[in-house]
Amino acid sequence: MPRTLAHKLIDAHLVDGEATPGAEIALRVDQTLTQDATGTLVMQELEAFGLDRARTELSAQYVDHNLLQADEKNAEDHTYLRTACARYGLWYSRPGNGVSHPTHMQRFGAPGKTLAGSDSHTCAAGSLGMLAIGVGGLEVALAITGQPLRLRMPRIWGVRLTGAPPPWVSAKDVVLEMLRRHGVSGATGRIIEYHGPGLASLSAMDRHVIANMGAELGATTSVFPADDAVRDFLRAEDRDTDFTEWAADDDATYDLTDDLDLSRLEPLIARPCSPGDVVAVREVAGTDVGQVVIGSSANPGLRDFAIAAAMVRGHRTAAQVSFDVNPTSREILTDLARIGAVGDLITAGARLHQAGCLGCIGMGQAPATGQNSLRTFPRNFPGRSGTPQDSVWLCSPETATAAALTGRITDPRDLADRLGLTHEVALPERASVNTGMLVAPPPPDEAVQVRPVKGPNISALPEFTALPENIEAPVLLITGDDVSTDEISPAGAHALPLRSNIPELARFTFTRLDPDYPDRAERTGAHLIVGGDNYGQGSSREHAAITPRYLGVQVVLAKSFARIHWQNLVNFGILPLRFTDPADHDRITTGDVLRIDDARDAITGGGDITVRNTTQSDTFTATHHLSERQVQAVLAGGLIPLLAASP
Amino acid sequence: MPRTLAHKLIDAHLVDGEATPGAEIALRVDQTLTQDATGTLVMQELEAFGLDRARTELSAQYVDHNLLQADEKNAEDHTYLRTACARYGLWYSRPGNGVSHPTHMQRFGAPGKTLAGSDSHTCAAGSLGMLAIGVGGLEVALAITGQPLRLRMPRIWGVRLTGAPPPWVSAKDVVLEMLRRHGVSGATGRIIEYHGPGLASLSAMDRHVIANMGAELGATTSVFPADDAVRDFLRAEDRDTDFTEWAADDDATYDLTDDLDLSRLEPLIARPCSPGDVVAVREVAGTDVGQVVIGSSANPGLRDFAIAAAMVRGHRTAAQVSFDVNPTSREILTDLARIGAVGDLITAGARLHQAGCLGCIGMGQAPATGQNSLRTFPRNFPGRSGTPQDSVWLCSPETATAAALTGRITDPRDLADRLGLTHEVALPERASVNTGMLVAPPPPDEAVQVRPVKGPNISALPEFTALPENIEAPVLLITGDDVSTDEISPAGAHALPLRSNIPELARFTFTRLDPDYPDRAERTGAHLIVGGDNYGQGSSREHAAITPRYLGVQVVLAKSFARIHWQNLVNFGILPLRFTDPADHDRITTGDVLRIDDARDAITGGGDITVRNTTQSDTFTATHHLSERQVQAVLAGGLIPLLAASP
Repeated sequence: MPRTLAHKLIDAHLVDGEATPGAEIALRVDQTLTQDATGTLVMQELEAFGLDRARTELSAQYVDHNLLQADEKNAEDHTYLRTACARYGLWYSRPGNGVSHPTHMQRFGAPGKTLAGSDSHTCAAGSLGMLAIGVGGLEVALAITGQPLRLRMPRIWGVRLTGAPPPWVSAKDVVLEMLRRHGVSGATGRIIEYHGPGLASLSAMDRHVIANMGAELGATTSVFPADDAVRDFLRAEDRDTDFTEWAADDDATYDLTDDLDLSRLEPLIARPCSPGDVVAVREVAGTDVGQVVIGSSANPGLRDFAIAAAMVRGHRTAAQVSFDVNPTSREILTDLARIGAVGDLITAGARLHQAGCLGCIGMGQAPATGQNSLRTFPRNFPGRSGTPQDSVWLCSPETATAAALTGRITDPRDLADRLGLTHEVALPERASVNTGMLVAPPPPDEAVQVRPVKGPNISALPEFTALPENIEAPVLLITGDDVSTDEISPAGAHALPLRSNIPELARFTFTRLDPDYPDRAERTGAHLIVGGDNYGQGSSREHAAITPRYLGVQVVLAKSFARIHWQNLVNFGILPLRFTDPADHDRITTGDVLRIDDARDAITGGGDITVRNTTQSDTFTATHHLSERQVQAVLAGGLIPLLAASP
Repeated sequence: MPRTLAHKLIDAHLVDGEATPGAEIALRVDQTLTQDATGTLVMQELEAFGLDRARTELSAQYVDHNLLQADEKNAEDHTYLRTACARYGLWYSRPGNGVSHPTHMQRFGAPGKTLAGSDSHTCAAGSLGMLAIGVGGLEVALAITGQPLRLRMPRIWGVRLTGAPPPWVSAKDVVLEMLRRHGVSGATGRIIEYHGPGLASLSAMDRHVIANMGAELGATTSVFPADDAVRDFLRAEDRDTDFTEWAADDDATYDLTDDLDLSRLEPLIARPCSPGDVVAVREVAGTDVGQVVIGSSANPGLRDFAIAAAMVRGHRTAAQVSFDVNPTSREILTDLARIGAVGDLITAGARLHQAGCLGCIGMGQAPATGQNSLRTFPRNFPGRSGTPQDSVWLCSPETATAAALTGRITDPRDLADRLGLTHEVALPERASVNTGMLVAPPPPDEAVQVRPVKGPNISALPEFTALPENIEAPVLLITGDDVSTDEISPAGAHALPLRSNIPELARFTFTRLDPDYPDRAERTGAHLIVGGDNYGQGSSREHAAITPRYLGVQVVLAKSFARIHWQNLVNFGILPLRFTDPADHDRITTGDVLRIDDARDAITGGGDITVRNTTQSDTFTATHHLSERQVQAVLAGGLIPLLAASP
């Protein structure tokens, strides 16, 4: 039977289960990726598991998020990560070496491999014909210890590409078109498999852009075939030998399908504050802009910066615009210097920053209140920029740079006409390769001598107790749809340095939605959260489960959940329940006490669970969609106590 | 009578007083410089004065300090500064354009001019034969309105240079030698005038390094002649026409003298936590290092980065070292790219940051607790890095880079022998010139239409009341010697965004010395501070006077004061008193209530002031050294109410 590429990748790694949509499957993990904002917990989890040495083919830890170092905390995390990597046999990418996803793609990515990463944009590596999945840190820690990755088999969504993007339309516009059509939960429970003749017009790095923001569609991951474009990419990185061809069979059929004619695309932009609120640039042209930022894993390629440099050459950015340029990696910065782009950007007024995620994760670059900021980033959830009342738009480097020059949202085609700009940029035949900042783990006999260095900011993992027999607790917060993990446990320059200190970080929980929540939770103890659709979209941070749990959350009752966050809740012993009838969401008021009798039995037995609203003398039902193993985890108070109890 | 250069510069600008040491003089101010961390208050002061348009020859506002933008505050300050500059007729240097001192030197500095700047390192412009003085923001605001700058005539200290620095010794070692000899208050009340044949070996930018750190010696300023080196510098900047020759008469005599044979110098380093604790690098060689940072106004020249790049070319920095490179300006970054230094630095492992002050002011780059950080910065006061328990050393780029390569403090001469390094670097004949990010003020008719935009973080200037008839209040804090303004009102990434919000910033006052102080002060109300020698050394921030005043400080009683802070206290209505007998300092205990009867009369009359310690039934005397005008300012509650009362 002809197979899709996704099925081929899954079949090659399937160690348990059947690849039928909805069934739990277990996949062998070849590689793992962690970044510093989630990695410090992963290292502590490896310690909790008593790991001797990583059992994957390759595990790499990147330091790309917490780069500002406003005080000692980030530097202490870096020291911890460096020494823990040496201890447990992981590669360590030094601070400022580069953003994890493109750097991993360039140095370690290889067709046909599986990659589990504690970052939701891990899926970007699908650009190379890998099966790359973003998961919570605990899943990655288990993968590092040699455990398979368990997930629900997604449906495979074949998106057939035809044509080629017209001038001034680029990869970002392709994925924005997907978001325009399908919204932020349009690919939930799906793997997006891109195929068709349109692929010929997309380089491997273009595909990275598209695969990366599959996360914004809610996809489990995206896959592209490993074809000539991938071969060319690996050759340019001096890694020809890592290439193997991977593609769907010619007559493979998909669970779902879509068609996208690249030649009909135009420049698009996502409005504040959702990646799914996409319109044509011309629809909003003329809007004042105060900041433009290019960079991040959602536009990481040399081309993405080179086009910006070419556009500004001989021109100057508007005086009221801060034009921030975040190079992806030291190699891309080297190449930008080599082709003269550094000079062009700086002369035109760019602020050239160190390589890393920076503003993408709210690590600096926060705009003034209400000031429109155009970014080539993947996300614009409310407040993610660091500014509570922010106004962040997402677009291509072309659209962003046009706004930097004019000070207003501008269709790059219109600016090109006016200034006589060309959309073609000359790139060097071969990329710079510099592996000097990737520190290989020492051999095992040396590794066991290393003692990970924990600074005072690194607190122990909290210990959580088992699910009680009966649940009876008040609802402390009710949210609408599409609440992101940025709203549950904010990133940003103030909170991120506390990622390895749960008690301190917990003070930020839900504060974007309700500044009083942490105090109320501490006064209350055990409580519930009620959410809407797509609850927990966005990042993979398990902190968005751990900190609510730390503050007393026992149950999250929502209309639906985003995949990674749902698993994270389970991993840390929070019971995720779905309303049987979504309309019941609106019948609950903050402060209502909900009761689930014999909760342990109820979730073990399967079927509907009766929830009584004792405040309103109301009753409704909810369901869980947990596997047997997930039920055990919730009962035990999370995966760590479960594993500790069953050696 | 033959004159020193300092006297010539003073004579050319004297509008009141006699140039006799200790007498109050008033000088016409040709140029002013403000930076963002002090400039937002200056703009509010201009507003308070009702200024229509700057009356200086040139006033320039730089945005170089608050560049990280962890939340909306910094970006809102930038918007305020940009619009206020347009309103009041100042040049505006856009965020990330460059560090104020070298940028001002390159674009606006001119021999024979006076410069008043609200930054203690304004004195760096002495490198060009300018009389450049760091003062509080209010003094700069007054200068912008056309008022002369008033100060005590300093003594002129002639430092005769001979010889030329040997290989691997550079300008930083010259000023470190001055600090080794004379300490952090060695030049208090003095202008350092460098002269002699040794000048021939020092470029204008080398002299900038030396003049810059005159601030660390406590000097009023430093001056170098405008000679061929200055002519060459201005020519390379396409500014030949701004050159005029300025030098001391051949047989000028100095109030004090010193001799410094450059050929006998060796690499030096200041130990934590004082710029005055200087030893030979070889004395501390082998000490572990976790971070190296090059940049700042204390080593801003292209050469300072080029030598680092040349040293690391073909080598790699030690894995445990974060090697942070802070380019001075977009022009220097352009030139670094042009000569290939960007590639060399990055390939060796540098983190290349945006142009600006950054770690020098604790705006990021904080090291891990206890980790040794070697920096080419001017200051290493405790906690200034952002890490409370920091361990910061100050040295030349050569010494810093050697440590980046070895991971240990290393004399660059020893490393050069080992690696066969050469200390000579090839620099381009002409510097890059890019004035595009310096925004000229609009013409007056346009300027009056501009309304400065104040974001929500910009609070009104607090209003202060007159000095009471009798002072009777407890001492809330007693300090030792050499307390810096960094300890009085910390900089750093947490506090700096609050520089235009006095009530919020006040929460940081003295917290480096005593975390409980702000709470205690708020509970207590009126109170006194007791200080040691050289109280208030370091930066020019008037916040170190305003926030204590806001919290209730009426009097600071110290053994001696640093110049700028002393004036800032007066400007904001705090009475600065010196112990007649310094030994009385030790007879006071925290909590003691001190009483000055008829305080207003006592300070108006001159002579000793009787202070009663009513808690200990003790009495001692103190003196003030205020001019008549300063007395009036203190009586009125500060210069703003004084000026408001006498239109």
